[in-house]
Amino acid sequence: MTDLDTQHVRTTTFRARYSETDQMGVVYHANYLVWCEIGRTDYLRDLGMTYAQMERDGLFLAVADASLRFHAAARYDDRIRVDTWIESVRSRAVTFAYRVVRLQDDAGEVKLATATTTLVARDAEGRACKLPDTIRDLLVRAGTDAP
Amino acid sequence: MTDLDTQHVRTTTFRARYSETDQMGVVYHANYLVWCEIGRTDYLRDLGMTYAQMERDGLFLAVADASLRFHAAARYDDRIRVDTWIESVRSRAVTFAYRVVRLQDDAGEVKLATATTTLVARDAEGRACKLPDTIRDLLVRAGTDAP
Amino acid sequence: MTDLDTQHVRTTTFRARYSETDQMGVVYHANYLVWCEIGRTDYLRDLGMTYAQMERDGLFLAVADASLRFHAAARYDDRIRVDTWIESVRSRAVTFAYRVVRLQDDAGEVKLATATTTLVARDAEGRACKLPDTIRDLLVRAGTDAP
Amino acid sequence: MTDLDTQHVRTTTFRARYSETDQMGVVYHANYLVWCEIGRTDYLRDLGMTYAQMERDGLFLAVADASLRFHAAARYDDRIRVDTWIESVRSRAVTFAYRVVRLQDDAGEVKLATATTTLVARDAEGRACKLPDTIRDLLVRAGTDAP
Repeated sequence: MTDLDTQHVRTTTFRARYSETDQMGVVYHANYLVWCEIGRTDYLRDLGMTYAQMERDGLFLAVADASLRFHAAARYDDRIRVDTWIESVRSRAVTFAYRVVRLQDDAGEVKLATATTTLVARDAEGRACKLPDTIRDLLVRAGTDAP
Repeated sequence: MTDLDTQHVRTTTFRARYSETDQMGVVYHANYLVWCEIGRTDYLRDLGMTYAQMERDGLFLAVADASLRFHAAARYDDRIRVDTWIESVRSRAVTFAYRVVRLQDDAGEVKLATATTTLVARDAEGRACKLPDTIRDLLVRAGTDAP
Repeated sequence: MTDLDTQHVRTTTFRARYSETDQMGVVYHANYLVWCEIGRTDYLRDLGMTYAQMERDGLFLAVADASLRFHAAARYDDRIRVDTWIESVRSRAVTFAYRVVRLQDDAGEVKLATATTTLVARDAEGRACKLPDTIRDLLVRAGTDAP
Repeated sequence: MTDLDTQHVRTTTFRARYSETDQMGVVYHANYLVWCEIGRTDYLRDLGMTYAQMERDGLFLAVADASLRFHAAARYDDRIRVDTWIESVRSRAVTFAYRVVRLQDDAGEVKLATATTTLVARDAEGRACKLPDTIRDLLVRAGTDAP
């Protein structure tokens, strides 16, 4: 993981949905990948480019690998915060990192999970391609934005 | 509902997934629409046309309305059977009906849900269109296949 | 549907998730039931009782039937608003109604879907039971709250 | 990854569901964790113990970490096979490995993804606990079943 002190971190908050729980009474583990994607969507929006527009422009970011570590369970209606930052940028790929926490009523927080996902650039035909310079530069600047 | 005795009914079976349960310990209700769609996919395959190919040919069937009635709950790992048949065919739409049952170890079955969904034809640009004659004829014959 | 002018209507807003889309490029129809449930959760919270607490107190509301009508498609990252109100309350069941709209950048809105779901009361053992008087009264008042 | 030649490998097959696709036209990445869980369920069933029964007996296996690598995309209606085996067994945890392939009409196969998940034992109160000896022994034998 990178040093958060020198990184831009974007946060997004929402409540855990009933549909996201399973019979163990907690949020089903695969849904954390969905939550990471919400964090990623909001991260890119904050940089001034939406992923929706990127796809309309013919650039697709496909998940190439993902790893998750689970520390505590989320429950229905919990207030969840996803912190998203960029871990690395290469010519054809970008790696995002995530920390998922539960917000407590006492203003404290409990770490639920950490994760990383690496996304590779694809064109409209699904072929691997380079990240366009403008997008790559934005991501690099966001990922190394030291004070 | 139509008279099943004079209808082709196609069945598909599978087990309820852990991911489909919720914290009430049963399968989350929205997943029954997913199960209906599996039944519909298999129904069309049995008629000799796959929905995957229909989309590649530029014909899309979009759900225009759906209604479900729940009678009993499905649980994780239950053996589920979906019976699918055609309730009606119009020039631009087709209505499927479904019965979802749990298969018991004693060879009995328990009715879990009944449902109908109406699907309307769309072309590749998303505009409403007529069902092609060949497809409409197949559906009409399947839907009125009296002995 | 009831006359909205004489009803309490609660709204909740969020963005359509990438995970909610399907290969038709729009939000998969079953996810509207998930969205209705989010509306229902927020409706109950606004009445001063959370559904999470209701379950901890041993009262479960199980979906007994659902009907949905789809008018237009939602797409990834669309801003969605769900309006939720109560259509009827009986001794053992409550029917919620929903209207799902897409919020436009020009402050306009487009109706995407309407739906109703009827939920029946169950105790901790899964048996049908009456709605507790306090809860039933709250729901009745919310559902008939004419000016 | 372990040497598959000296391992019991269980396979399970099914078709990719329409609901599992996203607007990129392929199966959404989080669904591979669902597929792994189906593989795991069938693996345990083949050992003569169902996970459903394990939970009824008060033993829960919670996912503690997961990692996935994606090689090629699955599409709607593809025939999918999940190979599942055990990578390691410890006193309180078991690690499963998975390989997900698409079955081709020509009897060939295309590797779609590989993954591992580590599950930790929990009792009915959610506390970390040891795997019962009988279950641990079964898993160890299955995981080291050299010819």
